[in-house]
Amino acid sequence: MAGKAVKGITVKKEDDFSEWYTQLVHKAELADLRYNIKGFVCYLPWSTITIKKMYDKYEHLLEEKGHLPLIMPSLIPEENFKLEAEHVEGFIPQVFWVTEAGDVKLDEKLALRPTSETALYKMYSYWVRSYKDLPFKRYQSCQVWRYEGKSTRPFFRGREFHWIEAHNVFATEEDARNQVLEDMEVTHLMIEEEFAIPIIFFQRPEWDKFPGAIHTYAADALMDSGRVLQLPSTHLLGTNFSKPFNVKFVDKDNKEKLGHITCYGPAISRIYGAMIAKLGDDQGLILPFNLAPVQIVVVPIIFEKSKAQVLKKCQEIEKKFKSDYIVKLDDRDYATPGEKFNEWEMKGVPIRIEVGPKDLENDSVTLVVRHNTKKSSVKIKDLRAHVKKIADSYTADVKKKNLVKFEDEVQNCDTLEEVKEAIKKKKIVRCGFCSLEMDAYACAESIEKDLLISIRGKKFKDEKEKFDKCIVCGKPAKETVYLAKSY
Amino acid sequence: MAGKAVKGITVKKEDDFSEWYTQLVHKAELADLRYNIKGFVCYLPWSTITIKKMYDKYEHLLEEKGHLPLIMPSLIPEENFKLEAEHVEGFIPQVFWVTEAGDVKLDEKLALRPTSETALYKMYSYWVRSYKDLPFKRYQSCQVWRYEGKSTRPFFRGREFHWIEAHNVFATEEDARNQVLEDMEVTHLMIEEEFAIPIIFFQRPEWDKFPGAIHTYAADALMDSGRVLQLPSTHLLGTNFSKPFNVKFVDKDNKEKLGHITCYGPAISRIYGAMIAKLGDDQGLILPFNLAPVQIVVVPIIFEKSKAQVLKKCQEIEKKFKSDYIVKLDDRDYATPGEKFNEWEMKGVPIRIEVGPKDLENDSVTLVVRHNTKKSSVKIKDLRAHVKKIADSYTADVKKKNLVKFEDEVQNCDTLEEVKEAIKKKKIVRCGFCSLEMDAYACAESIEKDLLISIRGKKFKDEKEKFDKCIVCGKPAKETVYLAKSY
Repeated sequence: MAGKAVKGITVKKEDDFSEWYTQLVHKAELADLRYNIKGFVCYLPWSTITIKKMYDKYEHLLEEKGHLPLIMPSLIPEENFKLEAEHVEGFIPQVFWVTEAGDVKLDEKLALRPTSETALYKMYSYWVRSYKDLPFKRYQSCQVWRYEGKSTRPFFRGREFHWIEAHNVFATEEDARNQVLEDMEVTHLMIEEEFAIPIIFFQRPEWDKFPGAIHTYAADALMDSGRVLQLPSTHLLGTNFSKPFNVKFVDKDNKEKLGHITCYGPAISRIYGAMIAKLGDDQGLILPFNLAPVQIVVVPIIFEKSKAQVLKKCQEIEKKFKSDYIVKLDDRDYATPGEKFNEWEMKGVPIRIEVGPKDLENDSVTLVVRHNTKKSSVKIKDLRAHVKKIADSYTADVKKKNLVKFEDEVQNCDTLEEVKEAIKKKKIVRCGFCSLEMDAYACAESIEKDLLISIRGKKFKDEKEKFDKCIVCGKPAKETVYLAKSY
Repeated sequence: MAGKAVKGITVKKEDDFSEWYTQLVHKAELADLRYNIKGFVCYLPWSTITIKKMYDKYEHLLEEKGHLPLIMPSLIPEENFKLEAEHVEGFIPQVFWVTEAGDVKLDEKLALRPTSETALYKMYSYWVRSYKDLPFKRYQSCQVWRYEGKSTRPFFRGREFHWIEAHNVFATEEDARNQVLEDMEVTHLMIEEEFAIPIIFFQRPEWDKFPGAIHTYAADALMDSGRVLQLPSTHLLGTNFSKPFNVKFVDKDNKEKLGHITCYGPAISRIYGAMIAKLGDDQGLILPFNLAPVQIVVVPIIFEKSKAQVLKKCQEIEKKFKSDYIVKLDDRDYATPGEKFNEWEMKGVPIRIEVGPKDLENDSVTLVVRHNTKKSSVKIKDLRAHVKKIADSYTADVKKKNLVKFEDEVQNCDTLEEVKEAIKKKKIVRCGFCSLEMDAYACAESIEKDLLISIRGKKFKDEKEKFDKCIVCGKPAKETVYLAKSY
């Protein structure tokens, strides 16, 4: 909003993450929490612009991988919803129901989709007929609604969030498993390479998988302070949904067979939240270069005497870069240069170009890089080359700072005492566990309640560490698992 | 769906538009109507891809005109909804209500937004504070839900549709009126220039304006068969909503004033429907070149002997054009060339390149242009230039065929008998009318019921024709109005 000086964040990120995040969201004008329904927030332009760019990148990659887009109704009849038993049990506590329209009470309740399996697979039974239709890969970009009991946090968790969901049908289990691998590759390419958030994939325990899935493989983001945040997960649904929804195809051998289904759900709004949380610093937002709503801001340092020349130079610079970058000339006359610096730092604009009378005297400008606050004086004739160099390496530099090595975050533990110590030191714990099946649920429950941590599951691949005993009950350990505090 | 021969549309568009449209939607695989909630349909990939391109173009232009995007919750508390009396009266019969979540009955009913005034303006009262914030121009791309009584038709009218809504606040009525003009310009640039649909703007009668508006200016698409279809409308809301929602700003003179609000709602899914209806022909879909999901399809004519060479040439052609166009090589071996021709014609692919052994012998290919079915043999060395020429002029050619002159569609009438004749001849009627205020509602009602037509309002500008008497009651005519059959 115009004319207000943006005051900095008053706490340090590492001292009080929650308060830091809340202030960042407010002061960078990312979301407004004053909307009058609990758990529903307004995404302001600054976040929306970036979220739209993230959608574009994600959709583009999914299409390259052979997915086609579609748009489904957002309401699901109760009868569809009830077809898969585990699914209904898992989701029904979270469903918003439409029961009236105009002054009519509807004959059947309609669910606001919490996820679209039960809308889509009803249609897949019409669309998938022959092996020639397979693989059948579709996605939609949409919002979903979940009546969350947990406390909400803008972008991280809300009662309405914005995601992509991809739903695929294959002829064989092997094809489906390969899709899960592709989903993981896509996740790495997006979350790490484009959004600079370090992740690791775990196979979730039986008690924490997607309702109706055979297995869930979820990416956990490695946030600061040793916590993890679940980002996209991909689910092997096998034939669990094909059966009740009748998703069958006639194979080459002329026999009718059930399709093998996978689904994958990157929650773009949550990934955005993870990105601002992971990348941001005490000055505010930091964004990958290509996701910034403004990439270069030009700020004139105005004194009455030199005002005309300074503004003219600023306009020239804006014009010079406009064809290659998203440039903004901030020539508001009711804000001071200092207020402008703070505001654009808070908003994470990667490059700031300051132009004052002294700069002009030297045929130069002052250049400031957001992610490392480096300031330099650059001759105007060298400006284009300098800006290009910063722009080209900006995202790589941000990644260098943020993409931690998973192994550096982990500590092996053999006793619960060691676990407590490790968690205190903001480590992710690796230890033995009886299993990841339901027989281990009691062990999981006790440790999760006592230590306020959660069992993230087993590493998807390349596990080299073995433990003899379950860290909780001491029985022989079938699995090596990871424990962490989570958001 | 794979392997099925696409049979042509079995009726002519001009003989039975409704049946033609239904078959087109089905056979070009644009939407599936089998979803099990009345009035809700699935948009299939072929329509979704084009709709996404339309959104991109529209959003880009709105942003160029100074609108910023945001994302609002899709649920609106009943209390917001009831703040503006005309608005609530107009919309309440159409609202879907969420009344339950999980197993909880909600304290307050939540409306699935039928439009977002009452969600947004609540927030605008926080966001707009000073004259420095003005003009305040925002848009969101989203879906809305309306419990439509009228019969639905895919894309034209459904209970969930996809639109953009722009909502703007200005310091003065004059600024607001200028925004209405800008909205009209945007509409022409999009609907006519990009989507090739002829439109004309009318100021709607009092009884047909947006609930809560001072005036509504709506674009009517001039469809074949003399019918019109309402496309985007822009509304001058004045201070009707600012008052109850408290959208005020402190002006330069330090006084608090009410903001002047306008809103504009292009329904992208409906515009898509209008486009396929207006542009399509008896062979199926025709699309502007830049909106086609596939721009060039390469079809090999395969005989066993020359199969390898033909396929190789097709792959070369695909590769040649891939960097500049969206090309698809249709090498399915379970469909005949004839089936493929029909399918891609039905789907409106602008350019078809056929490659058979005879073509190869002559170092040429066969080129077919969808919108005029012109077929030519082109030497391979000239292919790039030929394709570029067709591509560059394709949309202009489609527009030439479709952008009729409004005056050619109109007939002046002085009696109801003449009106009947004109409507029979598929004309839009121009005539005198007592007024467009509520005192003329009785006249409107009688003629609309008797002749199954509607009063579209008065032309927004440049009206040269004057009539002495109202065509219904014979009293002096204050206005020159237009009557037409509408979808």
